[in-house]
Amino acid sequence: MRVSVIGGGSVDERTAERARAVGRLLGRRGHVVVCGGLGGVMEAVCAGAGEAGGETVGILPTADRRDANEYVDTAVATGLGHARNAMVVMNGDAVVAVDGGAGTLSELGFAGVFDRPVAGLGTHDVAGVEAVDTPEEAVDYVEAAVGD
Amino acid sequence: MRVSVIGGGSVDERTAERARAVGRLLGRRGHVVVCGGLGGVMEAVCAGAGEAGGETVGILPTADRRDANEYVDTAVATGLGHARNAMVVMNGDAVVAVDGGAGTLSELGFAGVFDRPVAGLGTHDVAGVEAVDTPEEAVDYVEAAVGD
Amino acid sequence: MRVSVIGGGSVDERTAERARAVGRLLGRRGHVVVCGGLGGVMEAVCAGAGEAGGETVGILPTADRRDANEYVDTAVATGLGHARNAMVVMNGDAVVAVDGGAGTLSELGFAGVFDRPVAGLGTHDVAGVEAVDTPEEAVDYVEAAVGD
Amino acid sequence: MRVSVIGGGSVDERTAERARAVGRLLGRRGHVVVCGGLGGVMEAVCAGAGEAGGETVGILPTADRRDANEYVDTAVATGLGHARNAMVVMNGDAVVAVDGGAGTLSELGFAGVFDRPVAGLGTHDVAGVEAVDTPEEAVDYVEAAVGD
Repeated sequence: MRVSVIGGGSVDERTAERARAVGRLLGRRGHVVVCGGLGGVMEAVCAGAGEAGGETVGILPTADRRDANEYVDTAVATGLGHARNAMVVMNGDAVVAVDGGAGTLSELGFAGVFDRPVAGLGTHDVAGVEAVDTPEEAVDYVEAAVGD
Repeated sequence: MRVSVIGGGSVDERTAERARAVGRLLGRRGHVVVCGGLGGVMEAVCAGAGEAGGETVGILPTADRRDANEYVDTAVATGLGHARNAMVVMNGDAVVAVDGGAGTLSELGFAGVFDRPVAGLGTHDVAGVEAVDTPEEAVDYVEAAVGD
Repeated sequence: MRVSVIGGGSVDERTAERARAVGRLLGRRGHVVVCGGLGGVMEAVCAGAGEAGGETVGILPTADRRDANEYVDTAVATGLGHARNAMVVMNGDAVVAVDGGAGTLSELGFAGVFDRPVAGLGTHDVAGVEAVDTPEEAVDYVEAAVGD
Repeated sequence: MRVSVIGGGSVDERTAERARAVGRLLGRRGHVVVCGGLGGVMEAVCAGAGEAGGETVGILPTADRRDANEYVDTAVATGLGHARNAMVVMNGDAVVAVDGGAGTLSELGFAGVFDRPVAGLGTHDVAGVEAVDTPEEAVDYVEAAVGD
């Protein structure tokens, strides 16, 4: 399946390591990572997926696909600015949120709109987010929720 | 100023009455209401603004401006679906949230992204939302926050 | 009705004068002008509409409604970049094109997509555009086409 | 490089065969096909690319990636309706247009906006389109224009 991984665009090393671990697990289990294509959690999860041979799609706010981080396999330019957040969520079957600020909150809202299950690692405490403690629990949760 | 009023597209009578009261206050004080243009809170706030002689802008998810509720003065079709939520927030100087579900949560995220002050009446309890108890407190709060 | 007026964002004085004349006629006859909200033809048509007491809506590519030219009454920020061209056309009942380059060509395409009649003053010679010689002919044409 | 292939969503067999030939050539020469992901030219070019082992990206107007034709490798849902036409063009380094109506015309406009070279096979005769006679000439043209 495809899993949208969302979170802060600029994060500390511990958060980046968690995102990288999520990426490695998703890649190892054959899932495609969808993300916003930029830095922070987005870059870390793509790096992790790449280490595990997984595939990554980055949906960028800008009109130039070269703005993608170096670990994105398929970069998609949108030119939509923050409105592209809807697309990041819409293109996954489930969501893993790692940390994150206001942009991530908008994406958690869209997860509800598009009825996607969400596992949260240290992210906003809002309706529909299953708080988990480890990358493994996050991936287990979304696999079980989607039945894949 | 312009105030984006967000909230559920289908609400009970008490919630609708609160939204209508918000609209009346905004209209009376010379502010323009921006909303998503459809039913529920969106319709009630436009009705209230209209009663007070205020002006309303409805930013619709569909490509047909005739989908606007009857109280919208300037209907703007977008054809963007839920991604138009970013535009609803971006086009106000401040936000009043009344009740609301997942779509409203996405808009509260965008309020953080676009750095808009938010007064909340019975809405999500998330960072950046000033919880208030009455329509008057909501309008007072956003006026003070914007300094207008 | 609403008429979308499209054309170059930077034009010579003769073209600007034609756009201004289109705006004056639309305003005088009670039609609302919809445009892209920036300079060139967009600014001239809004100025003309304003002289005649007409109303104008500017649908901007940026996320900041203060980017609108000074003659726009209702500025709508989109943050969509060039993709907002679809919205400019979608929000009118008919289109008048004055001059214009590639962006205008994209809008003429959308006029076909959304089935809007188009009068063209010195613009691209493509299917669906009724070439006319004067602002008056342009406005007469779209009024007759829409039956308003 | 990536080549955006645009054209009618419902075409006759001869046009579909030309689009399929464009796809085969692009795939054989190692280029990625970007298209709108639906039927007609979009489906034929993806089928051709697939026959040659090439990769395809389909950028859909709908919010559901399962609307992609069966030959799309990476489907990207947008939920933007026709405004996604900007994205189809923006995500290629060059454009090949095969036949096509109003939607294709909007994309030719965007090709000018985003400064992409365009080879045209039986498509609109507008500025910036290099009319060619065969799929091979189309692919040769865009390769030479991009220098790839």
